[in-house]
Amino acid sequence: MNSIILQQPGKIVFGENSIQGLSEDNLILTSERILFLIATPLLKTLQPICEKITLSGKKVVVMEYTFPGEPTFVQFDSLLKKSTNFHTDCVVGVGGGSVLDCAKLLAALTDSEQQLTEIVGIGFLNDRSSKLICIPTTSGTGSEMSPNAILLNEETAAKSGIISPYLVPDACYIDPLLTVSLPTHLTAETGMDALSHCIEAYTNKFAHPAVDTYALKGIELIANNLHKACVDGHDLEARAAMSLGSMYGGLCLGPVNTSAVHALSYGLGGKFHVPHGLANAILMPEVLRFNLSADPKRHAEVARALGVKLQGTDEEIAEAGIEKIIEISKACGIPQHLSYIGITENILSELADIAMNVTRLLKNNPREVSKEDAIEIYKKLL
Amino acid sequence: MNSIILQQPGKIVFGENSIQGLSEDNLILTSERILFLIATPLLKTLQPICEKITLSGKKVVVMEYTFPGEPTFVQFDSLLKKSTNFHTDCVVGVGGGSVLDCAKLLAALTDSEQQLTEIVGIGFLNDRSSKLICIPTTSGTGSEMSPNAILLNEETAAKSGIISPYLVPDACYIDPLLTVSLPTHLTAETGMDALSHCIEAYTNKFAHPAVDTYALKGIELIANNLHKACVDGHDLEARAAMSLGSMYGGLCLGPVNTSAVHALSYGLGGKFHVPHGLANAILMPEVLRFNLSADPKRHAEVARALGVKLQGTDEEIAEAGIEKIIEISKACGIPQHLSYIGITENILSELADIAMNVTRLLKNNPREVSKEDAIEIYKKLL
Repeated sequence: MNSIILQQPGKIVFGENSIQGLSEDNLILTSERILFLIATPLLKTLQPICEKITLSGKKVVVMEYTFPGEPTFVQFDSLLKKSTNFHTDCVVGVGGGSVLDCAKLLAALTDSEQQLTEIVGIGFLNDRSSKLICIPTTSGTGSEMSPNAILLNEETAAKSGIISPYLVPDACYIDPLLTVSLPTHLTAETGMDALSHCIEAYTNKFAHPAVDTYALKGIELIANNLHKACVDGHDLEARAAMSLGSMYGGLCLGPVNTSAVHALSYGLGGKFHVPHGLANAILMPEVLRFNLSADPKRHAEVARALGVKLQGTDEEIAEAGIEKIIEISKACGIPQHLSYIGITENILSELADIAMNVTRLLKNNPREVSKEDAIEIYKKLL
Repeated sequence: MNSIILQQPGKIVFGENSIQGLSEDNLILTSERILFLIATPLLKTLQPICEKITLSGKKVVVMEYTFPGEPTFVQFDSLLKKSTNFHTDCVVGVGGGSVLDCAKLLAALTDSEQQLTEIVGIGFLNDRSSKLICIPTTSGTGSEMSPNAILLNEETAAKSGIISPYLVPDACYIDPLLTVSLPTHLTAETGMDALSHCIEAYTNKFAHPAVDTYALKGIELIANNLHKACVDGHDLEARAAMSLGSMYGGLCLGPVNTSAVHALSYGLGGKFHVPHGLANAILMPEVLRFNLSADPKRHAEVARALGVKLQGTDEEIAEAGIEKIIEISKACGIPQHLSYIGITENILSELADIAMNVTRLLKNNPREVSKEDAIEIYKKLL
């Protein structure tokens, strides 16, 4: 087996009501100035915990995260400026992927000599002075487990990855109860995103047995529970299974990461503000169909994990897996066509150009993707 | 899902030749005084790495670990005394469970105000000043992933657990190449120990879905590869699979831990110096037979993970699983009877008394174990 580096939070507190232990976490107890970055819908839920920490003698600042869509460089900068004078020694992010990515970068850049622009790319961050706790409120992004943060350049419409071991949180609290009030369409889109993390890791050119375990279990959990969580957001069993599946998807991101689905979705997100999970959900079936021939066996194993029982060749089983993904996606109310979200044929070339620039992810794809291939994939999905 | 705390090294480097990256690890680069504790057979393998670190300007001390059997309080104390003046800021342990447990405790107690006797039990360690890297050279103990260290009290023959989040290493290097020269009987015994970690976690009273994933995958990997690794120690595929299975077993130890197999083996190890893995291997089938009725479904799932294909009731499948464990154990050359290792009927009561004191583990067992039950289990294995 090749050598691979697995980096994850040293402490993961998983389960219902797990956030109730936050105020007693050693990371909090050993900090003095705690900065909470909280998505608006969660402010009220976190209030008693923040108050408890304040009452214990700590300085607490709560910053509300209000930006829609994916965070931009300018938006993050405004958060950093707002927090600068607080000199936090522990950042706690509570929200979806955008909030967590910003919390991770706040922890990294608070009282740092490095500038945001210096750390874009892989491995440019020199250190992180602040402790970092991430608390996801969707089951999708996996940001709480990964060394990645993604920001959007508003001028160029390009998404940039900031990737560093220093962006892995010290601890995560994954509490399925925080996800029960997530609206159905966000449950569906973020859930399909988590599914794409697992599938793109398992079919990855750099797939590894130590990550396959997470990928396959994540696929199984999400396939069995995403629709249930969409039908009844208060189905706690389904929510907990989705939280676990999403956590496994997140564990795939650091060591193996995603491939062409994510690369082809960059332009949809960056340029046309299509939500990240939705873009991935629409693209996934056609990209997998394109990739299938490069590794029928692994694509068939994905299908098995999705619940396909069919007997047949690997190709047939894999194709049934793709149909199964479409079935789940449709059942959760996700549109299947790019035209539905306003994409027209004349912009496919531009989208493909953006995708071709995401070499960081394209290099992971089991089959080489040319610009023409990308356009063809988009076209099939119009 | 109940709340559970998963604590593991934030960095796991897994795979063949992974230790070649050790000298460039950030934990080493940011340390000045690095203390290696190395099992004798590995001294030569580690020498070039230690030299490279020395040449980079670091102070390096290599301590050879020579004690046979499980480490005692007195032995550990001698290691601590020997290393005191070095004031290490990074301990690297290289060896089996005994070496790693001592390395963990060295990292915890170097320049600490706490004494060894103060930290025995769960949660008494206040901090750890030194960084800690663990490099296992067997596929069994799981110590590199866990918050546990076990020492033997030579006078009372009792084994004591020192359990603390501060005993979880910062990083592990799990390199299957380090295990290829392990003699067959050690491969077999430590492998059965890893199997028992997975099985005792999965059938545990406090089993949890977030840990079940590791447990089942670990069982599958070990069942498929232990015999191969025993037959041909240089079968790298089998060795790597065993390393991964053992890692998963180790990940079960912190959050869920073991139960009656380990409790009943305490006296065999502490009083009669039976190697830990061998004691567990002999005890496992009869303890599982005793436990089966408390949760036939989970014991049947263990059997499925072991490779049992039988159709039938959960009880029948579970029983076939126990037979499968015996089959693997025998094929690997492990004796199946306590009499073979010198245990006679007149000492069973004493062994049972020792087991009854291991309430820390017995409380995890799916079925309550009385002293009479324990004696009965031992008796069946004479």
